[in-house]
Amino acid sequence: MAKSDKTPDQKAITRDTFPASKKVYVKGSMHNIQVAMREITLEDTQQAGQPGKTEKNAPVTVYDTSGPYTDPNIDIDVRKGLPRLRESWIAERGDVETLAQVSSDYGQERFNNASLDALRFGHIQPPLRAKPGRNVSQMHYAKKGIITPEMEYIAIRENQRFDQLKTQLNGQYATMAAQHPGENFGAYLHRGPITPEFVRDEVASGRAIIPNNINHPETEPMIIGRNFLVKINANIGNSAVTSSIEEEVEKAVWACRWGGDTIMDLSTGKNIHETREWIIRNSPVPIGTVPIYQALEKVNGKAEELTWEIFKDTLIEQAEQGVDYFTIHAGVLLRYIPLTAKRITGIVSRGGSIMAKWCLAHHKESFLYTHFEEICEIMKQYDVAFSLGDGLRPGCLADANDSAQFGELKTLGELTRIAWKHDVQVMIEGPGHVPMQMIRENMTKQLDACAEAPFYTLGPLTTDIAPGYDHITSAIGAAQIGWYGTAMLCYVTPKEHLGLPNKKDVKDGVITYKIAAHAADLAKGHPGAQYRDNALSKARFEFRWEDQFNLSLDPDTARKYHDETLPAQGAKIAHFCSMCGPHFCSMKITQDVRKYAEEQNIPDHEVLEKGMAEKSAEFREKGSEIYN
Amino acid sequence: MAKSDKTPDQKAITRDTFPASKKVYVKGSMHNIQVAMREITLEDTQQAGQPGKTEKNAPVTVYDTSGPYTDPNIDIDVRKGLPRLRESWIAERGDVETLAQVSSDYGQERFNNASLDALRFGHIQPPLRAKPGRNVSQMHYAKKGIITPEMEYIAIRENQRFDQLKTQLNGQYATMAAQHPGENFGAYLHRGPITPEFVRDEVASGRAIIPNNINHPETEPMIIGRNFLVKINANIGNSAVTSSIEEEVEKAVWACRWGGDTIMDLSTGKNIHETREWIIRNSPVPIGTVPIYQALEKVNGKAEELTWEIFKDTLIEQAEQGVDYFTIHAGVLLRYIPLTAKRITGIVSRGGSIMAKWCLAHHKESFLYTHFEEICEIMKQYDVAFSLGDGLRPGCLADANDSAQFGELKTLGELTRIAWKHDVQVMIEGPGHVPMQMIRENMTKQLDACAEAPFYTLGPLTTDIAPGYDHITSAIGAAQIGWYGTAMLCYVTPKEHLGLPNKKDVKDGVITYKIAAHAADLAKGHPGAQYRDNALSKARFEFRWEDQFNLSLDPDTARKYHDETLPAQGAKIAHFCSMCGPHFCSMKITQDVRKYAEEQNIPDHEVLEKGMAEKSAEFREKGSEIYN
Repeated sequence: MAKSDKTPDQKAITRDTFPASKKVYVKGSMHNIQVAMREITLEDTQQAGQPGKTEKNAPVTVYDTSGPYTDPNIDIDVRKGLPRLRESWIAERGDVETLAQVSSDYGQERFNNASLDALRFGHIQPPLRAKPGRNVSQMHYAKKGIITPEMEYIAIRENQRFDQLKTQLNGQYATMAAQHPGENFGAYLHRGPITPEFVRDEVASGRAIIPNNINHPETEPMIIGRNFLVKINANIGNSAVTSSIEEEVEKAVWACRWGGDTIMDLSTGKNIHETREWIIRNSPVPIGTVPIYQALEKVNGKAEELTWEIFKDTLIEQAEQGVDYFTIHAGVLLRYIPLTAKRITGIVSRGGSIMAKWCLAHHKESFLYTHFEEICEIMKQYDVAFSLGDGLRPGCLADANDSAQFGELKTLGELTRIAWKHDVQVMIEGPGHVPMQMIRENMTKQLDACAEAPFYTLGPLTTDIAPGYDHITSAIGAAQIGWYGTAMLCYVTPKEHLGLPNKKDVKDGVITYKIAAHAADLAKGHPGAQYRDNALSKARFEFRWEDQFNLSLDPDTARKYHDETLPAQGAKIAHFCSMCGPHFCSMKITQDVRKYAEEQNIPDHEVLEKGMAEKSAEFREKGSEIYN
Repeated sequence: MAKSDKTPDQKAITRDTFPASKKVYVKGSMHNIQVAMREITLEDTQQAGQPGKTEKNAPVTVYDTSGPYTDPNIDIDVRKGLPRLRESWIAERGDVETLAQVSSDYGQERFNNASLDALRFGHIQPPLRAKPGRNVSQMHYAKKGIITPEMEYIAIRENQRFDQLKTQLNGQYATMAAQHPGENFGAYLHRGPITPEFVRDEVASGRAIIPNNINHPETEPMIIGRNFLVKINANIGNSAVTSSIEEEVEKAVWACRWGGDTIMDLSTGKNIHETREWIIRNSPVPIGTVPIYQALEKVNGKAEELTWEIFKDTLIEQAEQGVDYFTIHAGVLLRYIPLTAKRITGIVSRGGSIMAKWCLAHHKESFLYTHFEEICEIMKQYDVAFSLGDGLRPGCLADANDSAQFGELKTLGELTRIAWKHDVQVMIEGPGHVPMQMIRENMTKQLDACAEAPFYTLGPLTTDIAPGYDHITSAIGAAQIGWYGTAMLCYVTPKEHLGLPNKKDVKDGVITYKIAAHAADLAKGHPGAQYRDNALSKARFEFRWEDQFNLSLDPDTARKYHDETLPAQGAKIAHFCSMCGPHFCSMKITQDVRKYAEEQNIPDHEVLEKGMAEKSAEFREKGSEIYN
């Protein structure tokens, strides 16, 4: 058995819980749903100078993408797949039918090929499809005014119980962004809790999408839109060169564990159909793909031999497995292709270059463009969302924001409106490599060209000179474009441009992008986002080391780094930090300052301002001599 | 011998050259100077489809902070220190005298203490000081209209030979920022080459500083100001808890190697005087310190026992060793201290908290403030620059931009003007922890309050929830504030808040901050900054793997990551990349596209726009059906 044939063993799948954390489930009120979250328990505060006197710290609830894997009460067998959370919700709508067998020719061929038995997922269910004439997209329901269980789930999930924390919020977060109107680029419409009706309205308008194929009932519903928390995507996938099915399934679970909101499976090589089945059946988050990659494999890598029939069969094959969104590069038009000829790096999107080659070989527009409405007809039968690919995105700073890129963007806007006619959900992919001063133009043009459909960008990377660190060059751009209004950020790992990411790279990419997304949520003034920052900062100030680790995005690394300098357990409860040693710590000194200040009668802000103005006047009168 | 006593051995100091690189020296025209740079040689381009036909690629010159260590033609003995590059320049000005012995009491005591012989640097030179009544600061010379060798060195260094690359630049870089006026926050005044006269003018106005103590003649002159390349600082220093002198000297050399423009030595513990001597004598970049740290050691950590006399002796001790800039927290005034009491993390600056404690204990303004003019008198005798410390900077997002922070900033502005009266150079330290939407206010207020003195910020960190990754949370903020006009960025390592950085952490911090600084240079429209990006992107597109590695900020890591997936030497000259495998590569396909497009008659931009408009009208006429 070749390495790539190795199927998953339960032992290879990470099921550790997070420290001091437990799964909590919040019940819906409209539907019979249980929304999963993670609750982090905190230690008590020891009052400075008052031994034995303590103060409780409320637990912190955080958005949780890790799925059932981190709930020790749920039995999971990777060979059977995750519990099918949404199965009954879908069935109850009464608009789908169960097919006797898969409708794609290729899917049937793979299913009937006995030589694949050893590596095929063992519990494949017959696929669902909309009944004739029905449309099962969330956008379709939303436009009809229906609030689905998915929508209520999302409303509860996005609030993350911050609506229950009003007393602790003290209005601080709600007003923070409002205080900086000049910097209020992609600010949330919302200042209060998100309601199921708001979710419905955003989906109906096309400003947000809920990617959840009826054949992927294992997902915990999530939403992508700029009036919600900024999301991140992690790419995985084996290649012709390296890695096994087991590794890829574990990478998917691992990416969700650290915060991946969706996963794109970019597998190539000979068993991508089977690899995808394993990933979908075990993924609690939506899965995206680029179907043209697999279609190209079917014609042995010869782009010019691609046909609409092969592509169409691939769409159906993947839709019936449960892929939640498809990247489709339908905006690569003939007239844009010569615009890339003078670029330094030409066309760097794999899908884009495949389609460009096809267009040139056939001297006509691609079948993705000419058959776009047929594609919509397929998507709405399974509720697959479009991720309209930016096949002409810039591959280096010098090529950013050029006429090829923005020409294609305009076409993506036209296609968006066509998809919406069919009530098919759409998001728009964006660059790429863009220097900071040219990032905002991308967001502004996208909102305009695509009628506010969610933007989904790769980075952007803000310099080309740091291969090996492109998670960082791109996090700088991602945080900014997230702030300006991008709804989902596609991660970049340290291996970008150099090789395939291993598990460490996947984690580095995910954590880095959680940072960028969270920084954007803060800057946009998300009502609950800063709660976790404040809880961690308070723990830091009070030398509650364990709480500081547990509240962090990556408790394992925080603890490990601390222990490298001060490994003793005693150090974690000591009132000093490793940087300064026991007698020389600013936080310790500050506690003394605070104690002192408390004994004083601290004047309020207004009195102080007056005092400072007087002092300042006095200073000037005395000839600006600072000591007297 | 305790670990901290271990003095440097030559073998422990990194002297490797960079791959495909050589040191080049550009001669001055006004002064007899040789400006060091690094030149990276590139391979030839293989013309696609034309075997054997090649095209030359011009070498790329890059700004080089690594000093003589990377020049194999220079003998270096860490026990004797670096060549004294500026010694004759200083002597020729005729305004300094050589002291018979150090003037600080503490310095003398250490010098005469035989028990320190084993760990003392062996070739200490007698210190220089300005002749009575003379002022040896670069600002003083600049105001008198004198262009020093240091200023000419800097002009040549900053240009990095981009002025010779005009034909290749094609006006592209000079116009890039100008094309985005709305995003042109901290744009360079300059669009063409930097002249020695411009350097002089910027230093005279206080908009830039040249930190180079007359007792640190080993430095290669550099400048900090927002009309020059954005610089980065790396903090090193042993603590009472860990690390040796040898490790710290190697960390300094190591930090310069990867791009540190200045080093701050934050050592604490018992042998900080001796550690500092070793570091200065072997550092090709300016060294900064926080003298109050050492003063506090002298009173056994009891802040309230600090006195002006102890502090003054410490300033002289360090000035005569050659420290190039001092962080002095003279803006922590009594009236600001109670403003920090309601913060989540109070006062997190170590210097700030020491001074706050002193102020409260004595019920009066600190000796740093009341003796500020005396401090200026000392600084100008050695040309030590001020780095006015932000003792009340925020330690978490919730405390950002508050009245304590901005109150202190105003006082720092007042102190700046006093220092300038003495022709003492000044930069201003800034935060810290600031969410993205509140970063720009810091820059705007600083420029206004401090009359455009250079800003020098720590990050800022844009979220508090990622200990272990604070190099990244802060690089996001650093790139932005650099773009807005900050002149130097103080790095943050992955160990921030958790422990002391080891060599790997120092490198991670430096590379991350080079990325942030370079992203800022690009966004500000630095005329030469994008040259390296373009050269690397061209190499990437042409599968010149070695050039891609060699042009990157960290060639070792780029090569290592590539080799993890495709270790064979053959893969580095193959026309495909490891992500897609040999038959499935977008760059390969693009080369075909380009070849095709070249055969076509590519219409120019205007014709294309017209063509698109026509196409679009035609589309609408046909009822917006996309396929026809």
